[in-house]
Amino acid sequence: MPPVNAPYRPEGLTARPLHARIHPDAVAHNLARLRAALPAGPAAPRLWATVKADAYGHGVSRVLSALRGADGLAVLHLDEARACRRLGWEGPILVYGGLYSPADALLMDTPDLHLVITHAAQLDWLAQAPLAHPPAIWLRFAGDIHHTGFSATAYRAAYDAARALSRRGVIGDVGHLNHYARADEPDGVGDADKVFRDTIAGLPGPVSTSNSAALLKHGARAADTQWVRPGLALYGASPFADTSAAQLGLRPAMSLHSQVVGIQRVAAGAGVGYGGAFSAPEIMDVGIVTCGYADGYPRHAPTGTPVLVDGVRTRLLGRVSMDMMAVDLGPVPHALIGAPVTLWGADGLAVEEVAASAGTIAADLWTSLSARVPAHLAGAAAAR
Amino acid sequence: MPPVNAPYRPEGLTARPLHARIHPDAVAHNLARLRAALPAGPAAPRLWATVKADAYGHGVSRVLSALRGADGLAVLHLDEARACRRLGWEGPILVYGGLYSPADALLMDTPDLHLVITHAAQLDWLAQAPLAHPPAIWLRFAGDIHHTGFSATAYRAAYDAARALSRRGVIGDVGHLNHYARADEPDGVGDADKVFRDTIAGLPGPVSTSNSAALLKHGARAADTQWVRPGLALYGASPFADTSAAQLGLRPAMSLHSQVVGIQRVAAGAGVGYGGAFSAPEIMDVGIVTCGYADGYPRHAPTGTPVLVDGVRTRLLGRVSMDMMAVDLGPVPHALIGAPVTLWGADGLAVEEVAASAGTIAADLWTSLSARVPAHLAGAAAAR
Repeated sequence: MPPVNAPYRPEGLTARPLHARIHPDAVAHNLARLRAALPAGPAAPRLWATVKADAYGHGVSRVLSALRGADGLAVLHLDEARACRRLGWEGPILVYGGLYSPADALLMDTPDLHLVITHAAQLDWLAQAPLAHPPAIWLRFAGDIHHTGFSATAYRAAYDAARALSRRGVIGDVGHLNHYARADEPDGVGDADKVFRDTIAGLPGPVSTSNSAALLKHGARAADTQWVRPGLALYGASPFADTSAAQLGLRPAMSLHSQVVGIQRVAAGAGVGYGGAFSAPEIMDVGIVTCGYADGYPRHAPTGTPVLVDGVRTRLLGRVSMDMMAVDLGPVPHALIGAPVTLWGADGLAVEEVAASAGTIAADLWTSLSARVPAHLAGAAAAR
Repeated sequence: MPPVNAPYRPEGLTARPLHARIHPDAVAHNLARLRAALPAGPAAPRLWATVKADAYGHGVSRVLSALRGADGLAVLHLDEARACRRLGWEGPILVYGGLYSPADALLMDTPDLHLVITHAAQLDWLAQAPLAHPPAIWLRFAGDIHHTGFSATAYRAAYDAARALSRRGVIGDVGHLNHYARADEPDGVGDADKVFRDTIAGLPGPVSTSNSAALLKHGARAADTQWVRPGLALYGASPFADTSAAQLGLRPAMSLHSQVVGIQRVAAGAGVGYGGAFSAPEIMDVGIVTCGYADGYPRHAPTGTPVLVDGVRTRLLGRVSMDMMAVDLGPVPHALIGAPVTLWGADGLAVEEVAASAGTIAADLWTSLSARVPAHLAGAAAAR
């Protein structure tokens, strides 16, 4: 008999049991782990903690205290930089997106900003709007990723223009920034680094090249720069397909939790979910979990994507719908309505594994988490 | 020569040009269109406008005025129902997610709630907590989608229990609710409807079965119910793979806009984006658009996904990254930095087309739109 009359085990008083738990302690641990991968001493690279996209979905306000040991924060745009100031961050802030229009100068009302400059007009805009707090700038090299930035042929002219502004006091120091397309590959940065280093040869200024993948896989090159700028690894995901976060000594900073809110006994041959994407090969007990693609769970996750029910590993069945999904209760026949469900980020269910099953990466899952999913602080921070 | 020194054409003063435009006029039009698909007169089905997931990502507060003509609103959980009341909605509200725990009764502090009941314990919880405003209830049939709800064998016992509560005044009327797994298919609901109708045969109470797809494709069955509950079509997307929204007379209620923020001239054989997922077959001009997967644009969108630059149709190149993407400027060689970009929802670029290219559906894109993307009202509502 299907246990539709099963007793309910309340876990809390929220109207909907779906929630994320954010672990600032894990962020602090991961920051220390990344520091330890770099040389110590006065020549050690400084570290920007990348907190764009609201700290990769974790919430800047929730993790900022765990990032006190960083030398700076890195954000996408000036509004984010100002938000970090409002939260009390007094150190340097790197702004990747830099300037979108001349009017953005109005947003540069705080000292110790570092602006990434990606095209020449941005330097003109700075020249036209002298600022009370001249920002340091970093010239972005287009590199092998060919997103924003200066090509090898345009780079030196941009550098000369920037240095002229620096000498006039319109801006502060001028640095050199590159970003690799293939830092996760064993031989992924050698050629790209050579082109970059040839381009900046003889040009004074600090250098920054390394994200999480480059820092962890190409440490000698990262050590030969003045600033590194990890993001993904700070939040506890591995940048590498063949190495887990645990193997790298990283701890997950976000876990996603829900509950079984319905149980169906499904006959052999019956479909589950939209379009009957899963068809039961035999009679099955199916748990319905309140979490769907509108919450940020990937609609691309297919049947077989791992899920924990009451701590037991099982699998998603059929198509994820807007507000719910179905899971196989075969491995966990004792589960009742109210049974706890972990969707990612706990022991035995790394977010990378769920992401890989859905054909994407951990950062996509984290940043897709919807505003309708409440986040709770976990660990020591929750007790404060 | 790559136009990296191109003049900038400001479109506004926002720090980042990425934004959504919400068109309440389109929602009002679509509501009228759906009404017109139903019979008129006193026997006409009433209409719940489904506004769960913050009106499918459009924002309940932005579209509520356009939904004045609906008979009720449908939401997922009680917190959303209370938010609709705070926004001034005084009519009926259907709550799909219903009750997650006995404590949820504390949230039922408003009249004219309609609760979807999906398992028997929920009736016990209601019996234990008599309410000042007894809600109407709808018993959900598990149907052919096998998500939440009562099986054919459990349904009548649930109905008897509900009717007993209704007679005692603990709850109001008892209705019958079904949801189809295959309403988008030509013969998708016949068998499912027969099972449902057999199950409720002889049981008094209103009936609701039809979402957008069922209403538009199986109108005679929808007309034979007391309430319909469209969602997707209200916001202007087609539920059908073979029929466009325009063919259905629907207008898109959300468009997503950004700008070119960088231009790269890329050599033959060079990669674009992470992992070199796109390799230029010849020298190309590539536009960089400030919009990425952390904004809600699907990371699954492959090279070739359509994009409009300065109104000209072109295509995505390579892997979408967290904050930006690359597009082919071949079809629009006059584009400069600052050129307007439409990512979905305008003439010539239906959201369904972008969704299909990414292997998903319009509702997934809309509800994935990130909180970091500002939304502006467009149309007549913007002038008020």
